Amino acid sequence: MLKFSIAAKDRDSRARAGIFETDHGIVETPAFMAVGTQGTVKAVNQNFLEHDIKAQIVLSNTYHLYLRPGTEILEKAGGLHKFMNWQKPILTDSGGYQVYSLSSLRKLKEDGVEFRSHLDGSSHFFSPKKVIQIQRSIGSDIMMVLDECTPYPCEYEYAEKSMGLTSRWAVLNKEAFENSKPLYDNKQFLFGIIQGSTFKDLREKSVTDLKMLDFDGYAIGGLAVGEPAEVMYDITDFTTDLMPENKPRYLMGVGRPENILESIERGIDMFDCVIPTRNGRNGMLFTGEGTINIRNRKWIDDFSPIDPENPSLVSRFYSKAYLRHLVISGENLGAQIASIHNLAFYLKLVNEARKKIEEGNFRKWKISMVKKLSERL
Amino acid sequence: MLKFSIAAKDRDSRARAGIFETDHGIVETPAFMAVGTQGTVKAVNQNFLEHDIKAQIVLSNTYHLYLRPGTEILEKAGGLHKFMNWQKPILTDSGGYQVYSLSSLRKLKEDGVEFRSHLDGSSHFFSPKKVIQIQRSIGSDIMMVLDECTPYPCEYEYAEKSMGLTSRWAVLNKEAFENSKPLYDNKQFLFGIIQGSTFKDLREKSVTDLKMLDFDGYAIGGLAVGEPAEVMYDITDFTTDLMPENKPRYLMGVGRPENILESIERGIDMFDCVIPTRNGRNGMLFTGEGTINIRNRKWIDDFSPIDPENPSLVSRFYSKAYLRHLVISGENLGAQIASIHNLAFYLKLVNEARKKIEEGNFRKWKISMVKKLSERL
Repeated sequence: MLKFSIAAKDRDSRARAGIFETDHGIVETPAFMAVGTQGTVKAVNQNFLEHDIKAQIVLSNTYHLYLRPGTEILEKAGGLHKFMNWQKPILTDSGGYQVYSLSSLRKLKEDGVEFRSHLDGSSHFFSPKKVIQIQRSIGSDIMMVLDECTPYPCEYEYAEKSMGLTSRWAVLNKEAFENSKPLYDNKQFLFGIIQGSTFKDLREKSVTDLKMLDFDGYAIGGLAVGEPAEVMYDITDFTTDLMPENKPRYLMGVGRPENILESIERGIDMFDCVIPTRNGRNGMLFTGEGTINIRNRKWIDDFSPIDPENPSLVSRFYSKAYLRHLVISGENLGAQIASIHNLAFYLKLVNEARKKIEEGNFRKWKISMVKKLSERL
Repeated sequence: MLKFSIAAKDRDSRARAGIFETDHGIVETPAFMAVGTQGTVKAVNQNFLEHDIKAQIVLSNTYHLYLRPGTEILEKAGGLHKFMNWQKPILTDSGGYQVYSLSSLRKLKEDGVEFRSHLDGSSHFFSPKKVIQIQRSIGSDIMMVLDECTPYPCEYEYAEKSMGLTSRWAVLNKEAFENSKPLYDNKQFLFGIIQGSTFKDLREKSVTDLKMLDFDGYAIGGLAVGEPAEVMYDITDFTTDLMPENKPRYLMGVGRPENILESIERGIDMFDCVIPTRNGRNGMLFTGEGTINIRNRKWIDDFSPIDPENPSLVSRFYSKAYLRHLVISGENLGAQIASIHNLAFYLKLVNEARKKIEEGNFRKWKISMVKKLSERL
């Protein structure tokens, strides 16, 4: 089992500071995982990812890696760590979400999901066993089960049926996990995914089903799919309360910096989101004082550093006016700088959250931070 | 005047190793200038440009910088060096070539050229005086005169008329240069541009006209515009013979690695070209053993480093199979790695050329290199 220990708890909230260990290194929580969908954190080279952003763990994607470069290449490479030259921990999403959001002609069946590739229209079938096999080929430190991610809004009846399927698949995932072995020299762990849309009784049922399977960690799926933030917080709050205390809790696909702080308060340990990189490429920058839209004309002659408080080299080296010029000119370097800046900001934010939890004054800090983070500069 | 000194000459060719000094540092020749059209070497951050690629000098572009971000912003920034955070030498092309290749509704007049911006269709006018003013706003260490770049093929009559105009403009450029001062704390130098298409008598006339103006250096323009390589070499050979011995000679827009070596042999000191970055983005990689098309299926499971002989970190850190995956997946990091790799290769190539010139055995080395460079791996 994954060794997860809680180093500190906040005095006034359910926030906790934890740590877990993989064969590729430790992860201190709360943790934000940089998203590296296709085996690369978009626009960021591994040197910056490790030494400047100081990413502890990267998330990659089973669906994407299965389609390209494919498991044969990944196995020949000796796994994704070697393929992408990243020797720290990797978590892989199972592909359930991508099948739902990207592929066409999806057919959900009791034993899995048939879909067509968004790249070339070719037909494929994912079963719980299959996604475990693929993740064995990838060699990720943490694998995720195959689930169905319901959209928002979602009818109760559909959500109930879907959650039931996710629970039955969870059993098959766990079986496949136990009946297979890692292909490389690192241990692999498996997290379950709690579904149930915005319905508390379904979330409760889902947690109960999954807890029986004793996963290494538990994720909350099916949130951050368009529901209001308050609904997301409410369901997170409700669900974390039911989740095992002694296992990492991962809120999938979340979110903006303020969403992350609110969810840490509610007991979440792990996050991933494309916002820092995707929004960065479009010119949105996160700072401790609020959000910057670098395309705005007001930055045209602001030659001050992007953000002197950001730990990244690039945020202190380049000016706002220069970054604005790059983003407006569609220059690749603009995407690079903005992505690095935002990821460094996210990493700093969760590191500070951890410190505040250790000091026992997370909640107070969170309130002042959320206020600042909502500003537009 | 620019201090240019020749440190060594090859025994068996007209190749020479030189050095010149600007207020932003020295440039050893033969030199390849990384192209940073819009104030950024595409996909390459300044940290890698300086410390990994070890670029000595960057070329930027008057036409592009004039349109965006504009001279007002550049002046407020304190010049391009500060704007883009690049403290080594910068040469700026005058924009003559871009007016010819990018803008629409070009009207060539005796006193300058009227054109419409390729960005928004707005009307602008470049005169010799104007491009000097713009380059004063930019603050480049080396400025280029406004010229007309003739296309290939070109009628003799048009080439003659055009060369005459370029010569008359050269006088006006020089006047504007002498009647103006740098805006910042670095000296600026001015290079003339020799035109005359593929006609030797016109090239001779052009050199004669420009030599009278005593520029800091001389460029050969109007080549590498589609003519056969043999024609380019022949005209270069003919023209360098007439050019001042004690000034840098710059062959504009050249070229592939073998073109560069052939031109060094014919007495050229400086080069610039988009090939390493543009072709890199498309998956073409240069190595000492030949050219790689990384999109080719043969690299799909080649996990060896991109090029262990390349001095860049990225060429030894990343594998061919991984770079292929990135380029095929359209990932930004693919463009980044390929651009850095190719630029590092170009810089290494001209550095080696310099060494061979110093050792007096450039020509022999060149013959073996050109053979290898023409291979496709």
